[in-house]
Amino acid sequence: VTALRAVYRLAVPPGRAEERAAALALEQTVELPDAAVHDRFVREHVLARVERLEPEGPDAVRAILAYPVSITALDPAQTLNVLFGNSSLQPDVQLVDIEVPSALRVALGGPRHGIEGLRQLLGAPARPLTCTALKPMGLSPAALGRLAGLFARAGIDVIKDDHGLADHTFGGFAERVRACQRAVNEAAEETGRASVYAPSLMGGPGTLAKQLAIAEAEGVGAVMVCPMLAGLPFLQELVAVRTERPVLAHPAFAGSGWIAPAALLGRLFRLYGADAVIYPHSGGRFAWTDAVCRSVAERLRGAWPPLLRSLPVPAGGVQVDRAPDLVAFYGADVMLLIGGSLYLAAEGDAASEAAAADRLLGRTRELVEAVRSAVPGC
Amino acid sequence: VTALRAVYRLAVPPGRAEERAAALALEQTVELPDAAVHDRFVREHVLARVERLEPEGPDAVRAILAYPVSITALDPAQTLNVLFGNSSLQPDVQLVDIEVPSALRVALGGPRHGIEGLRQLLGAPARPLTCTALKPMGLSPAALGRLAGLFARAGIDVIKDDHGLADHTFGGFAERVRACQRAVNEAAEETGRASVYAPSLMGGPGTLAKQLAIAEAEGVGAVMVCPMLAGLPFLQELVAVRTERPVLAHPAFAGSGWIAPAALLGRLFRLYGADAVIYPHSGGRFAWTDAVCRSVAERLRGAWPPLLRSLPVPAGGVQVDRAPDLVAFYGADVMLLIGGSLYLAAEGDAASEAAAADRLLGRTRELVEAVRSAVPGC
Repeated sequence: VTALRAVYRLAVPPGRAEERAAALALEQTVELPDAAVHDRFVREHVLARVERLEPEGPDAVRAILAYPVSITALDPAQTLNVLFGNSSLQPDVQLVDIEVPSALRVALGGPRHGIEGLRQLLGAPARPLTCTALKPMGLSPAALGRLAGLFARAGIDVIKDDHGLADHTFGGFAERVRACQRAVNEAAEETGRASVYAPSLMGGPGTLAKQLAIAEAEGVGAVMVCPMLAGLPFLQELVAVRTERPVLAHPAFAGSGWIAPAALLGRLFRLYGADAVIYPHSGGRFAWTDAVCRSVAERLRGAWPPLLRSLPVPAGGVQVDRAPDLVAFYGADVMLLIGGSLYLAAEGDAASEAAAADRLLGRTRELVEAVRSAVPGC
Repeated sequence: VTALRAVYRLAVPPGRAEERAAALALEQTVELPDAAVHDRFVREHVLARVERLEPEGPDAVRAILAYPVSITALDPAQTLNVLFGNSSLQPDVQLVDIEVPSALRVALGGPRHGIEGLRQLLGAPARPLTCTALKPMGLSPAALGRLAGLFARAGIDVIKDDHGLADHTFGGFAERVRACQRAVNEAAEETGRASVYAPSLMGGPGTLAKQLAIAEAEGVGAVMVCPMLAGLPFLQELVAVRTERPVLAHPAFAGSGWIAPAALLGRLFRLYGADAVIYPHSGGRFAWTDAVCRSVAERLRGAWPPLLRSLPVPAGGVQVDRAPDLVAFYGADVMLLIGGSLYLAAEGDAASEAAAADRLLGRTRELVEAVRSAVPGC
């Protein structure tokens, strides 16, 4: 593969497809009417080529365009710009998939650890993994630290900050990371088994760099970022040159409908280096279907040499009781992120905080056991 | 105003609005079911409040939510996260407008120069302004430099890189910026009137910093960034702490439908510091209506103390002949970005490059004259 290919869904009848796809090819490369493109180099080495048009019913067409890879400058921002810069503003076109030539895969690099690296770090070579979130925003660092310790003792593999936890006046980043990492360390000394704590980095590039330095100094096992807030090119730079820690990617601010999840979370998040990708599983608070979830997981885990495989982390209103179903759906190479429903399942009549913590611990242990003993499907 | 308010359009019938808005308030703050939120501080100081629900026909409701400003941590990324992090993934909700309390306006800062600063820089205190783009991608730095010189001699106010021009093997960023800035300088010596050249910065944070340093060393008058590619928080940091140059913001990768242009380009781009905001005017290659364009321009230019006013830069397939209409539509505080149709209008039969350049120069002069003599409306 030497071209960067993009698959678009055009909301036009097949009779208008050729003209619409040609306009798309101009828009994404020269941004000029065809009649104003004279330069021979530009015509031969810059213009996109419409490779294929496939009708999808009476009102839509799949268009496959091929871009010369050199126009991406092998840069993470320019690659997005070529794929879907201007045209993203047009409501009749959606980016649905991409095919990336090896030169660009090598340049952008993909995950540093991937599924196998995460498994090694967690001492879990084959079983499905568990994840939960420290929440809600507004709890003190000490209270979040207590939660982190509880989840670690219950055997959760990855304990992450809720992505709403920022550097708040009512809970600073540094204090939180210290409290949570220490609690996880203490639990590991008790149980002989280490959970990974992943703080959420949130801010502009300067703030992100400061938070990363604090997190690394505290010895965190991983970090989480929201690439659509930080900028997808930041994710690529973070993984390629800024940290050796595993990176979890959270889909906040990814939007709905304009880029298909398979292309954005499945392809681009992996290409840009996410070791694990969080996304809403079907049947929760989000409107994703089983087919969409499968399309994301396939792209995260499928062969895409030389890129390592990324771990799917389905989440978003998943109920504790559905854990076995999810493992049956995804197979063993998955990390189930169960947050809200775990907290809710731990609710009860007793008012005491200690009793509530006991219930949460018990409920979390049940979840961990249910996931460990679930029978992988796929 | 002490709360951060967001206006959402919920695609639900009015009968379901209360429940849907309550779920949105939980999603954007605690990410927990209401029954699992016990902490008094969290209930009083973190949870969003549904302030108002207004039916919009049988299938939609406008919901106004108020967020305690402290949960934004006065941070550019967390502010977006609070406004539309998780919920952006849900297809039944669109962010349509925001109301920003003064503490957050002051913290994020807005434009450094604004309309008045740009006018001072350009020596044009009152008239409508002109802008064009150097294109297409694939031309050599020398050829782009010749174009820059031509546009400067024709009297264009701001000459910007096409946002597709990156740091390519067939045209490096440094060579291009040097060639274009020098050409603009030479033209200014001839004409006694300086145009501003604005190179497009494109890449991850590290690359952007290097490109900015190169551009400043060459003495450029402004820079352009694509905030949705670089990350909106990068724009805020760029303007607040990294450069004193005016910053033009380009809408590439902004998507369609998930955030209303009024909220994203009108409010957020201004809040995060764009001195001028490029967006597609109605009737061109993009599907925006007059009403949408007006909503963006109003938010860029309206009173929003202490933020300076941002300059609307309508573009996107605007024809040379429509320039007077655009000035009538927007009034004098506008910069018309005319690219492709200028190149196209300069087409003719003669094959010689010199003849083509002469035609482009003549056509550009006509445009500049037409805009200067247009009668502002509004």
